[in-house]
Amino acid sequence: MSKNKKTLKIAIAGLGTVGAGVVKILENNKDMITSRTGRVIEIVAVSASNRSRDRGIDISGYDWADNALDFASRDDVEIVVELIGGSDGVAASLAKQSLAAGKSFVTANKALIAHHGFALAQTAQDHNAALKFEAAVAGGIPIIKSIGEGLAANNLTRLCGILNGTTNYMLTQMEATGKDYSEILEETKLLGYLEADPSLDLDGIDAGHKLAILSSVAFGVKTDFANVYMEGIRRIKLVDIEYAKELGYRIKLLGIASISDAGLEQRVHPCLVPNAAPIAHVDDGFNAVVVEGDFVGRTFFEGRGAGEGPTASAVVADIIDIARGHNGPAFFIPCHDMKDVPAASISNRYGPYYIRLHVEEKPGVIADITAALRDKNVSLHIMLQKGSEQDGSVYVVMVTHEVREKDVMTALDQINALSSVIDKALAIRIENL
Amino acid sequence: MSKNKKTLKIAIAGLGTVGAGVVKILENNKDMITSRTGRVIEIVAVSASNRSRDRGIDISGYDWADNALDFASRDDVEIVVELIGGSDGVAASLAKQSLAAGKSFVTANKALIAHHGFALAQTAQDHNAALKFEAAVAGGIPIIKSIGEGLAANNLTRLCGILNGTTNYMLTQMEATGKDYSEILEETKLLGYLEADPSLDLDGIDAGHKLAILSSVAFGVKTDFANVYMEGIRRIKLVDIEYAKELGYRIKLLGIASISDAGLEQRVHPCLVPNAAPIAHVDDGFNAVVVEGDFVGRTFFEGRGAGEGPTASAVVADIIDIARGHNGPAFFIPCHDMKDVPAASISNRYGPYYIRLHVEEKPGVIADITAALRDKNVSLHIMLQKGSEQDGSVYVVMVTHEVREKDVMTALDQINALSSVIDKALAIRIENL
Repeated sequence: MSKNKKTLKIAIAGLGTVGAGVVKILENNKDMITSRTGRVIEIVAVSASNRSRDRGIDISGYDWADNALDFASRDDVEIVVELIGGSDGVAASLAKQSLAAGKSFVTANKALIAHHGFALAQTAQDHNAALKFEAAVAGGIPIIKSIGEGLAANNLTRLCGILNGTTNYMLTQMEATGKDYSEILEETKLLGYLEADPSLDLDGIDAGHKLAILSSVAFGVKTDFANVYMEGIRRIKLVDIEYAKELGYRIKLLGIASISDAGLEQRVHPCLVPNAAPIAHVDDGFNAVVVEGDFVGRTFFEGRGAGEGPTASAVVADIIDIARGHNGPAFFIPCHDMKDVPAASISNRYGPYYIRLHVEEKPGVIADITAALRDKNVSLHIMLQKGSEQDGSVYVVMVTHEVREKDVMTALDQINALSSVIDKALAIRIENL
Repeated sequence: MSKNKKTLKIAIAGLGTVGAGVVKILENNKDMITSRTGRVIEIVAVSASNRSRDRGIDISGYDWADNALDFASRDDVEIVVELIGGSDGVAASLAKQSLAAGKSFVTANKALIAHHGFALAQTAQDHNAALKFEAAVAGGIPIIKSIGEGLAANNLTRLCGILNGTTNYMLTQMEATGKDYSEILEETKLLGYLEADPSLDLDGIDAGHKLAILSSVAFGVKTDFANVYMEGIRRIKLVDIEYAKELGYRIKLLGIASISDAGLEQRVHPCLVPNAAPIAHVDDGFNAVVVEGDFVGRTFFEGRGAGEGPTASAVVADIIDIARGHNGPAFFIPCHDMKDVPAASISNRYGPYYIRLHVEEKPGVIADITAALRDKNVSLHIMLQKGSEQDGSVYVVMVTHEVREKDVMTALDQINALSSVIDKALAIRIENL
């Protein structure tokens, strides 16, 4: 039990939504946090791009730094909190310099940890400093702690999750309103839910960052974002959501990671998930993670994925952990025990597929399509075709039996070369969680 | 970072299902756990009521103690793991003596912590020892850690959960098979899912124990099992499950705790929960907990509630925590900060109710019933009556608007006194989570 009542001094770099939230929590819940940690947590300095912006918080009592890198050399600062963002630049320099100076480093920066997690963990270990990033993945869910500590008795081999709230919101809205992708995209932009670079959300990159972090925590592998397969939601149409529903599924953008003799599998892509799976009912901006352990079985965690409150809650939980003296390795095992595991190729995925085709309605089209599938031994379980569109084209939806990914993709390449194909065939993996 | 590679020696009291599971995890995942903790965890001694029983584990390498209390005075033992059960007797003596001797104490015993949690936490604090009980609540969900650490930045004021897997299994089976309570009860007994004293499951006592523990962890109040209101599932009929379904609800046995100016509310009883709530879809032996924080918003956790693997996983997580040097206060704040909060009476609950009546079908019955409700200002939202049973009786189901519990109960007392009432009226609280 820590009897150390010494003040714990922190500096915060970045005062956007999350940074302001961290200040609010530390001020509003100050007495409670002092009781929970046995230490008074004091913000001594802050830094941001704009000093005078109204953030709904009073920062006049804190030192101001024009350059956040100054925090790394301040003798009185025990924890540097980085809420700037970006995989490189100031955030990365601040991480390296702070840890090398023996300061603990708390961040919500998923890109930074996905790209440099292992190297930073090594720097932290070498200088006996703590590196913590609970807020980088699924803000409102204490998933890093749950995997690294709560489920630490288990050998974990598989996890999956809805890791991006914005795209989950968009898919939920498409189903709820019956509006198509482009219309919902515009509405989501207006709401300010998209990252400054929308590609991070729409192409699955943000979810990929989070998945790479979760893999490292769960499997003890070196962070390997470069080998995450990513495919976003840009090609999902309302018609896919409607057909999926008819087939007993919902469409979710999932991150899936597993480790086996085949290697480390890390992939982010839209999936059809059965209605009966809890993850099928995680809607709007919520995130969820499913973790399976050899002893604990299946566990399921759900909470808000982003936003001021949930993300700041996770940042402060990390600060509280450090105040309590919980300063273990960043990925919960020493760096020299972290494994280099070769990536498993997605082309070896074996499972069922939903395939949506948009073709001209004329004799022989279906024969050509089914022949291409037959040639790659892709056998069909269900085929739906429901009348024509106004322009005389037709949507054909098929569900395959379990097949090899490369066979499906080769067959679709052949199908896409047919002159009757209006829009490139879309295959969505079905995950029977 | 702990560089302490010294062996951590533990003794296990109780080798039932969970005890055997703990031995299996520590043996099967030994190398992984050593990497995760930096220490070799060694079982040095075990104790159980029967030495020779086949448990699927080899205990010949451990010292045997006929009396588990011997562990409290063994100099080489750092952690005593108690898996005997029971709120008093050997378990309680072992807890007191171990902690008083400065040993850490890990237990899965919910009755012990519900009854003596605060006193044991005080003993632990006085002797600088750790007291941990993750396995006591919702085995497969790291909920104690999630609340006490993961959500520690938040002021928590409300939580609820499905905390008893056996009754959740029974309710799920009634709906799935269309069999009535008594038949499912017999099947559940045969499966061995019921506690040795079935009242612990069926009357909500087991869930009550767990709720009292969660309240202390979440709200920082002294454990107060004596004031938990408990009502089990014995009066739930198939007809209730069917009517609930028709009304858009499912019936779940929930534990609900909240803290407000009205005091500490702790209640376990069947509830109608809306189909749209995630907790409505937690089936069979699974447990779930919903926690709301001032910054994090709503979080939802689901996992297996009991059984060898999930419970042992939680016990070993506590051992790993101690091996990592995480030895903070049992309820995450020092004992002198734990509050004595008066109990809020359930008679002040304000909300909607489902009421099921079984009455003789004759003129004036409904008039008498509705008059009794009117006299207590209980206004009705829905009333369903669907033809008669073969014996000429009739089920009448009503849903009230939001009303005060004591008014509903007083009205039902009057209704129950009517000669036309065949079976005492059943009121089930509707919780629009």
